[in-house]
Amino acid sequence: TTNRVKAAPLLLTMERASRGWAQAVIINSGNANACNGKQGLQDAFSMGEEAARLLKIPREYALVASTGVIGQPMPMEQILPGIATAAAALNKDGSGAAAEAIMTTDTEPKEAAVCFSLNGARITIGGMAKGSGMIHPNMATMLCFLTTDAGIAPGCLKDILRYAVDRSFNMITIDRDTSTNDMVLLLANGKAGSREITEESKEYYFFRENLTRVCTHLAKSLARDGEGATKMLEVQVINAPTEAGARLAARAVAGSNLVKTAIFGEDANWGRILCAAGYSGAEFDPGQVDIFLNGIQVAKSGCSLSFSENEALETLAASTAQILIDLKTGSFNATAWGCDLTYDYVRINAHYRT
Amino acid sequence: TTNRVKAAPLLLTMERASRGWAQAVIINSGNANACNGKQGLQDAFSMGEEAARLLKIPREYALVASTGVIGQPMPMEQILPGIATAAAALNKDGSGAAAEAIMTTDTEPKEAAVCFSLNGARITIGGMAKGSGMIHPNMATMLCFLTTDAGIAPGCLKDILRYAVDRSFNMITIDRDTSTNDMVLLLANGKAGSREITEESKEYYFFRENLTRVCTHLAKSLARDGEGATKMLEVQVINAPTEAGARLAARAVAGSNLVKTAIFGEDANWGRILCAAGYSGAEFDPGQVDIFLNGIQVAKSGCSLSFSENEALETLAASTAQILIDLKTGSFNATAWGCDLTYDYVRINAHYRT
Repeated sequence: TTNRVKAAPLLLTMERASRGWAQAVIINSGNANACNGKQGLQDAFSMGEEAARLLKIPREYALVASTGVIGQPMPMEQILPGIATAAAALNKDGSGAAAEAIMTTDTEPKEAAVCFSLNGARITIGGMAKGSGMIHPNMATMLCFLTTDAGIAPGCLKDILRYAVDRSFNMITIDRDTSTNDMVLLLANGKAGSREITEESKEYYFFRENLTRVCTHLAKSLARDGEGATKMLEVQVINAPTEAGARLAARAVAGSNLVKTAIFGEDANWGRILCAAGYSGAEFDPGQVDIFLNGIQVAKSGCSLSFSENEALETLAASTAQILIDLKTGSFNATAWGCDLTYDYVRINAHYRT
Repeated sequence: TTNRVKAAPLLLTMERASRGWAQAVIINSGNANACNGKQGLQDAFSMGEEAARLLKIPREYALVASTGVIGQPMPMEQILPGIATAAAALNKDGSGAAAEAIMTTDTEPKEAAVCFSLNGARITIGGMAKGSGMIHPNMATMLCFLTTDAGIAPGCLKDILRYAVDRSFNMITIDRDTSTNDMVLLLANGKAGSREITEESKEYYFFRENLTRVCTHLAKSLARDGEGATKMLEVQVINAPTEAGARLAARAVAGSNLVKTAIFGEDANWGRILCAAGYSGAEFDPGQVDIFLNGIQVAKSGCSLSFSENEALETLAASTAQILIDLKTGSFNATAWGCDLTYDYVRINAHYRT
């Protein structure tokens, strides 16, 4: 997270992960352990300590993540026995159970994996994630945990992960509220036996591409499962003068309340799309822009195009709304994902605690 | 507006207003004259031309504003006769009728005025505004027109207006979507007979304070009338290390979908407030922050404080929710206004065109 308010487990994990080495992640849902002062830090430390003791690894190799209610003390009398139970249940097929265990208001678990060859070795990247908005009183707590058996130097791994996250998790928006607990972790153990990736190379780019695929799949699962969502929103900006501009515009459109409500209402309201791109900070000439909704062109060179409202209505009934914005002034592209804004979003978030 | 997509009347008015002199503003609602290409510019020009001709003033002194649907040609065959009717109906008591005429989805007209003495002369500042969200298919079109009989040099007037707008209209948020037509205009004619204000002085600051009062009153009216709103939201950030930080934090909290839904649900969900301040970009120490909801302290030094949920529920039933955030790390304050996010907001914006 970039939030100034950081939960205790995040502070602990940021420090430990910065060293580049880890062997275990202990995760709880139900309590975010945020805004708990010194006791929160002590509890996060104890969770890591207990996990390390049970797994017989150095304490610095145990990372900690939490998701749930803010500002309530951690129920350590339940957490510590839970860690023992989880440690005893560790097995190679447990990832599905873990992906379910970390869900909060998610309606389904999120998992993804790819296999590919790298210099003759069979490499796997797997991951799981949770999140569907700012859930429980105040946590978004998008969490994602990735593992791979590829061998990669910590510095390379960090660069590769940043690249993949920028193009996946950093391109989704549910409600433009970022949380105090967001976290993406990637652990690599080198057990696949391929040559270690230590610098930018053909292998580096190939691995990065595969990691981005896994992250994008998980990110789209999060967007599709956004709180109250009935439709996923995919916004592609093409032919922008810069990559940063393409990403700004795509994210602004995917995050606009007015675009999101229009998509919920299955309304081909292209003016809201152009307007959101306009305030995104991206540079473009509004008089050049073409807009397509699920393949139907609705605007040409920034002006209205007569299109069949019936045809538009029909295509907008699909579970994914694809918005394509062609800025026609460069060669950079970006894609962002989001979801519609619905009565259920309001209901879930207005009445969660009461 | 700072939107890259600017409506034709805005382009015309920006150019004319930059010269510092104007005598009339012609305003239409129902059609925003945005995304209409060259024809849109021609139509805006014709509107100003016709108003200037009827009022016998130089064409450069006629400003033009529009609000309504985007991407549809202006019905000039209705507009031109309308300008003649409006010009014939001009009178000293017509401001109320004008304030009503520019409404779109507003539920009530917005007007404000103050009178005060300046060097023995009786000065009046009056204003009207419209807006309650991004209305009609895609326009927010917050419009505001201010007049005064004080005498002020154009340069001074511009600085004073910027100051007042930064603390009023730039501190309100309905749905974080900015429009293609936003405009605030201030005309001064010097008829009150006071000495002209030409530089920063006691009179300059006194006038500025009064203008800010008028603008703040209008801005709050806009926030209270936000689309679907049941409550106004007033967010005060105090004791911030910088003014910019105070304003960033106040606006982020007032604009957060999660804060807005919690206020709709009358839920004393202070973690969402701290979280939004945390991602605002403002610098502060989360461990220092106190938070009050309608006078009830709900967080102390960044931690939960036990408070009566019943008492909180009762106070949140009021039509204004006041959030006070004490950062306790400086001496700068700022206030932002917004409204709750409700089922009606979703309904209005999902089904407007269909």
